[in-house]
Amino acid sequence: MFGRTYYCGEITEKSIGESVVLKGWVQRRRDLGGLIFIDLRDRSGIVQIVFNPEISQAALETAEKIRNEYVVDVRGTVVARNEGTVNENLKTGKIEISVTDVTIINEAKTPPFMIENKAEAAEDIRLKYRYLDLRRPEMFDVFKMRSDITKAIRNFLDEEGFLDIETPILTKSTPEGARDYLVPSRVHPGEFFALPQSPQIFKQLLMVSGFEKYYQIARCFRDEDLRADRQPEFTQIDIEASFMSQDDIRNMIERMMKQVMLTAKGIDIETPFPIMAYDDAMERFGSDKPDTRFEMELKDISNLVEHSDFKVFANAISSGGQVKSLVVKGGADQYSRKDIDGLGEFAAVYGAKGLAWLKVEAEGLKGPIAKFFSTDEQKNLCAQVSAEPGDLLLFAADNRKVVAESLGALRLKLGKDLGLIDESKYNFLWVTDWPLLEYDEGENRFYAAHHPFTMPVREDLEKLETDPANVRAQAYDLVLNGYELGGGSLRIFERDVQEKMFKVLGFSEEEAKEQFGFLLEAFEYGTPPHGGIALGLDRMVMLLAGRNSLRDTIAFPKTASAGDLLMKAPDTVSEAQLTELHLSINKKQDAKVGNVL
Amino acid sequence: MFGRTYYCGEITEKSIGESVVLKGWVQRRRDLGGLIFIDLRDRSGIVQIVFNPEISQAALETAEKIRNEYVVDVRGTVVARNEGTVNENLKTGKIEISVTDVTIINEAKTPPFMIENKAEAAEDIRLKYRYLDLRRPEMFDVFKMRSDITKAIRNFLDEEGFLDIETPILTKSTPEGARDYLVPSRVHPGEFFALPQSPQIFKQLLMVSGFEKYYQIARCFRDEDLRADRQPEFTQIDIEASFMSQDDIRNMIERMMKQVMLTAKGIDIETPFPIMAYDDAMERFGSDKPDTRFEMELKDISNLVEHSDFKVFANAISSGGQVKSLVVKGGADQYSRKDIDGLGEFAAVYGAKGLAWLKVEAEGLKGPIAKFFSTDEQKNLCAQVSAEPGDLLLFAADNRKVVAESLGALRLKLGKDLGLIDESKYNFLWVTDWPLLEYDEGENRFYAAHHPFTMPVREDLEKLETDPANVRAQAYDLVLNGYELGGGSLRIFERDVQEKMFKVLGFSEEEAKEQFGFLLEAFEYGTPPHGGIALGLDRMVMLLAGRNSLRDTIAFPKTASAGDLLMKAPDTVSEAQLTELHLSINKKQDAKVGNVL
Repeated sequence: MFGRTYYCGEITEKSIGESVVLKGWVQRRRDLGGLIFIDLRDRSGIVQIVFNPEISQAALETAEKIRNEYVVDVRGTVVARNEGTVNENLKTGKIEISVTDVTIINEAKTPPFMIENKAEAAEDIRLKYRYLDLRRPEMFDVFKMRSDITKAIRNFLDEEGFLDIETPILTKSTPEGARDYLVPSRVHPGEFFALPQSPQIFKQLLMVSGFEKYYQIARCFRDEDLRADRQPEFTQIDIEASFMSQDDIRNMIERMMKQVMLTAKGIDIETPFPIMAYDDAMERFGSDKPDTRFEMELKDISNLVEHSDFKVFANAISSGGQVKSLVVKGGADQYSRKDIDGLGEFAAVYGAKGLAWLKVEAEGLKGPIAKFFSTDEQKNLCAQVSAEPGDLLLFAADNRKVVAESLGALRLKLGKDLGLIDESKYNFLWVTDWPLLEYDEGENRFYAAHHPFTMPVREDLEKLETDPANVRAQAYDLVLNGYELGGGSLRIFERDVQEKMFKVLGFSEEEAKEQFGFLLEAFEYGTPPHGGIALGLDRMVMLLAGRNSLRDTIAFPKTASAGDLLMKAPDTVSEAQLTELHLSINKKQDAKVGNVL
Repeated sequence: MFGRTYYCGEITEKSIGESVVLKGWVQRRRDLGGLIFIDLRDRSGIVQIVFNPEISQAALETAEKIRNEYVVDVRGTVVARNEGTVNENLKTGKIEISVTDVTIINEAKTPPFMIENKAEAAEDIRLKYRYLDLRRPEMFDVFKMRSDITKAIRNFLDEEGFLDIETPILTKSTPEGARDYLVPSRVHPGEFFALPQSPQIFKQLLMVSGFEKYYQIARCFRDEDLRADRQPEFTQIDIEASFMSQDDIRNMIERMMKQVMLTAKGIDIETPFPIMAYDDAMERFGSDKPDTRFEMELKDISNLVEHSDFKVFANAISSGGQVKSLVVKGGADQYSRKDIDGLGEFAAVYGAKGLAWLKVEAEGLKGPIAKFFSTDEQKNLCAQVSAEPGDLLLFAADNRKVVAESLGALRLKLGKDLGLIDESKYNFLWVTDWPLLEYDEGENRFYAAHHPFTMPVREDLEKLETDPANVRAQAYDLVLNGYELGGGSLRIFERDVQEKMFKVLGFSEEEAKEQFGFLLEAFEYGTPPHGGIALGLDRMVMLLAGRNSLRDTIAFPKTASAGDLLMKAPDTVSEAQLTELHLSINKKQDAKVGNVL
């Protein structure tokens, strides 16, 4: 039964004449002129095998019973194909295997969808039969790439002296951040573990321990309402180091990404990556993770329209807002009034109350609001935004947030729609100088923009109590093609600074002590300056493998409703299990309890 | 602040005259003749730094404020030590750093225990201050070794073509095996995920997917009552491959362990490892994981004492049991009657109702039961167990299980007590030909000895229905020095065999379908023969690092009551969190609910 000598996809003309043993799956079978041809597939590729009654009548008879996806053991000789039958599209297309023996190892029913790259089945069918979905070669390629990327990262970090340290999955629920998954304790009635949203605190404690360089490919968990690009469990490349500056860390990550890009794409990317301050990114791209593969930057025209007769513009500015423009080069002819109405509806999703527009013609600006602008004003406007005849100008007038978000989203949409994005580019970018805190109007309190352990910029420290909104963080995000690959920061390592931070976040002294007392105490025993980063592995693989969904990068993903369609999880559990955990289900909420054995 | 030029422990005489920048922790300070000496420590080791007022009065004044465990930035020059002050015990003992500048980066309170290898603090204090416990150099060494072992394993498996694939942590509760940790679902009221006890089913599904070679350093979970050598979460080296024989898999693991041993211990171990059938292991060593570093095998004397006048022996045999002996070489003088009574009490823990004994003297056997044996019987007995004058013979007479367990445990105890174990040896051993099933007298049913997916030996297949107790498994355990490092098997890959297995285990057809229907279905779509192994990483590190507890190999372990003393987990959660999860705590059981923010 055993003793495979080659993978199917790796046999070349060099082996002509050799006896081989192959194992694999039947991709398809054709009967032709008394012969049977089978495309035999394993993870390496496909090879053609031929059953000829003159070589073995018994093998031919077995082959007659073989159907798609049967698992077979094939023995035979590598022969050159006849000239007319060479298949240039196949790596092994110059040879075939003339079969002497074949054994059916296992049979197969007809699968619910064909095992081929073009997946036409609905995604719920693909997820239910995930083991068949993963049999498609392009899916194998994704996981091969994921494994290779992980390996490249590990090798790089090992070389740099980082230790791979595992941190707990059963840990403590913390009030900041997203919703925790909880795990009831059997031994401690009424108490719960939480699954970690990140190993943040553990890696900081390892720095207190003097480990100096830690990494982990770490599983993390968030019980959030899922969107297309979120999963309840995800994997991050988690890194922390002591005594390193922001520059040291960024430089190291750049060298790491160089290895990753060489491994995954064979591309030697340029370093260092450009650095853009958060404020610049928001001003120029309306995004904290700008896609810099195309231009079409946001142009501020507030200075020009502050006193405009067009009251929508003037009022936006007088109430503290802005007016900004996107210049769609050559867009005047491409967008009808109806198209532009469509763009307005798109912008409205991001809070824009309207989308003003103008077309640039040789003789001046045209459009419903053109009349509000004098000839001089029109000239100045065109000069300031570098608009030329044929261009379409789109305007948002609102507070900074709405202007940035609506035009930022519109910019990305236009970039895609107009084919402005060079898909072969990999534009890495650091976004730095983040605000430390974000104000939540609804809850009337500050939240940590990254997390409560982020170090403020030293010279902003005293503003922490007087002007928290303007304290900058020693934080940096890594952006690739408009996606956040990850974020990091230097961390607070002094007890008094950490206490101030908790205070700004609205923790009472007791609350801070109850939740994070162990960390505050740890800071008193000789804590080194430290910092790090966490990069999303799933998203990195998604971008580099050119997939559209995180689900394609996770072997057994959950659906949008956080369920596993293959195994059917979550599921009911027995009353005995619940009793052991000291729990009851609140029946009034339509809860189901079943008996599973 | 930044710009370290050396790790402390890596400065040698070659650097004499160089200016260096060091960062680290103060191990201790000594004031001597107007100078101050500090031992500066980082993860690489220790170097002596000297503050001399003639070099820098300012640095000396700062040094006066420095206490143990302060974090400092030191700049200075490497100088040779005076001949009389060379410290041969220290790697850096021939040099010291003459300090020009020093900066206190962070202060430290006096730690609750000294940061040194000799840990004299109670373990609960060490766990509460784990970040200080990990600062001890010997703890760093364990985690360095763990990281290096993991790296060696990954590199080996990568070379062999294995893909590193992550499988879910949020999965489905299964009725077989140990108790699951459950995770309530917020989105699906009354339903639960379970944390995996192993990725067993996922790795088999990856084989159905044609991935062929999978590995993962996988976190696994068991909600068991903890013993000294168990943790609620543990890590296994999880491996699965298609189209490989038992020999292929064992051979590969041997080559992997060769790399591990080279990396961790610098020892080139011999392969192949010896193979012992389960029945032999039990007969000869009274253990399914024999420690073969010393002999003292169990000797069966049932044939000699079947009709003995000593009724305890004769009756044990007539009721289907055995009589076996341990020969303690030269033990006659070492064990008093009271000592032997102590051994009897020890054996009683394993069910032995008594421990008969005899001492061998030149003139014959001595001891309370000697009178039951004729001179010929005595001679035959001594000849059969190879006993010589001066030896002590210990006997157990009972059913096979009690004889094996009591003498097996006694053998290990005697081996340790008498110093028979060569601690420098690493004896690897495969134990094969396991029984497929174990009968539970209490529950009156069969359990899978390994797990329900283990392939029976082909020629035993038909006994599955007629004589399940005597079906052997295609399973193999890897044993090191009397510890089970891990176990593996070939797996069932045919639906009908798997269905029969579930039936023997007492599953009704519906139950099998409800719990494992997806797997049975998967087997119908072309499943290759496959098998694998899982090795316990925590235990491997424990054995190779020479530690006595798994807790020393896990950065943030749980206590025996499954708690985290550092962060205080598990803990109470808010009512709001419970409500979202549709759960109530059964208050009658003394449950505690708190408000955590």
